[in-house]
Amino acid sequence: MTKITSTKSETIKRLKRLMTKKGRQESGQFLVEGEHLVDEAIRAGRLVQLIMGESYRPKSSWRLDEMLVLELSDHVADLLSETEKTQGVFAVVKMTPVERKMKHVLVLDRIQDPGNLGTMIRTADAAGFDTVFLGKGTVDPFNAKVVRATQGSLFHVNIQSVDLLDTLPELKSLGFHVYGTALSNAKSYDQVAFNDQIALVIGNEAQGVHDDVLALCDTRVHIPVIGEAESLNAAVAAGILMYRIALQ
Amino acid sequence: MTKITSTKSETIKRLKRLMTKKGRQESGQFLVEGEHLVDEAIRAGRLVQLIMGESYRPKSSWRLDEMLVLELSDHVADLLSETEKTQGVFAVVKMTPVERKMKHVLVLDRIQDPGNLGTMIRTADAAGFDTVFLGKGTVDPFNAKVVRATQGSLFHVNIQSVDLLDTLPELKSLGFHVYGTALSNAKSYDQVAFNDQIALVIGNEAQGVHDDVLALCDTRVHIPVIGEAESLNAAVAAGILMYRIALQ
Repeated sequence: MTKITSTKSETIKRLKRLMTKKGRQESGQFLVEGEHLVDEAIRAGRLVQLIMGESYRPKSSWRLDEMLVLELSDHVADLLSETEKTQGVFAVVKMTPVERKMKHVLVLDRIQDPGNLGTMIRTADAAGFDTVFLGKGTVDPFNAKVVRATQGSLFHVNIQSVDLLDTLPELKSLGFHVYGTALSNAKSYDQVAFNDQIALVIGNEAQGVHDDVLALCDTRVHIPVIGEAESLNAAVAAGILMYRIALQ
Repeated sequence: MTKITSTKSETIKRLKRLMTKKGRQESGQFLVEGEHLVDEAIRAGRLVQLIMGESYRPKSSWRLDEMLVLELSDHVADLLSETEKTQGVFAVVKMTPVERKMKHVLVLDRIQDPGNLGTMIRTADAAGFDTVFLGKGTVDPFNAKVVRATQGSLFHVNIQSVDLLDTLPELKSLGFHVYGTALSNAKSYDQVAFNDQIALVIGNEAQGVHDDVLALCDTRVHIPVIGEAESLNAAVAAGILMYRIALQ
């Protein structure tokens, strides 16, 4: 096992390219940081390379092929970190989608905030949703902030970038009932008997679901505001609706 | 109306002190940024001073006493901003609590993340909760990130910092039923018939509700995880429970 001590090494340049959307798309790989996410990547069989700062001690449960391990000086490892206090452990991970039988699908239209997207993926996993479709204009799901906010759930659900104007009609032809969130002409979600095979569409934080996408939805639902707030946070709204669907 | 052009002015020093917890506590005032929050502060009658960068044009609906308006050069206004792209409008606001009749109370035990706290206050408002009690160790509710995430809801609900070990017994003596979130020995929230006067306790993002606080709760509730996620984001969990209580 060699140790990389120079911040200028070609390997470091390659790894830093994974911190950009372009670099991730070209390689079909992304970078995760922190013991919990690395552990999830290993358990999901998605590990390409394990990267450790010299002062990090790996979890004893990891049975690692030495060939896959790269050691770095701590100051070099710091270059890869996007957190304030790094644990000094990273993994290069394959983007391979998780295969899931589709039944409960979350559909996201132009979600902008990385924390919101990651939280929605985490909640989708918790609520037993199997698939998350990301429409054009949604933040890159392999962005470090998104990955961190998923808390590992991106290894448990099928996440795919799609064109919603194609995907929603396909889902409908497969027997899915498509629910879109909207403020007007919408039923209060607690008055809706949700179908068995469903797709739930959540829209952009400020603008909601685009009209062209909403036109493809079978039923419009909303969460009533009882107090004086103008609206709910998108990730909270998604959580309320997904759990209602899961436990109705 | 004078315009402040120096970043070294005493007024700027005073305003910058409001960006620290100590400065806010000493003055009983806090700073909000952006047209929407300033508008909420004015409508709530809580405005102490309106602060505008020279290129900002105020909303025409604001009927302002010129004495309350402070104009700054744009580069000076930038010093007060905690956003990437400032709108150039700020307000100094009184901390005076909102008076509300208590019926639905959210109780927070050591919430650490400013975004989570702000989102919970926003959701509490939306779900018609009237009061948010913050136990010791919870992030300062007048921190700029919290204020921003509330989206103005901090002007609509009664927010108070308290000692939970005193407050929960007081709530119980007033007839409130206290529900604490817990992973073990807890009922699934969808199986619970919530009382009329309730307090809902949400705990720290990593550790949950402290044992000493949980011991004061009448009923323990949890949100079942259906998929493989380990847990839910605290603000999402709070949203699911508050809406269940609001619309049961």
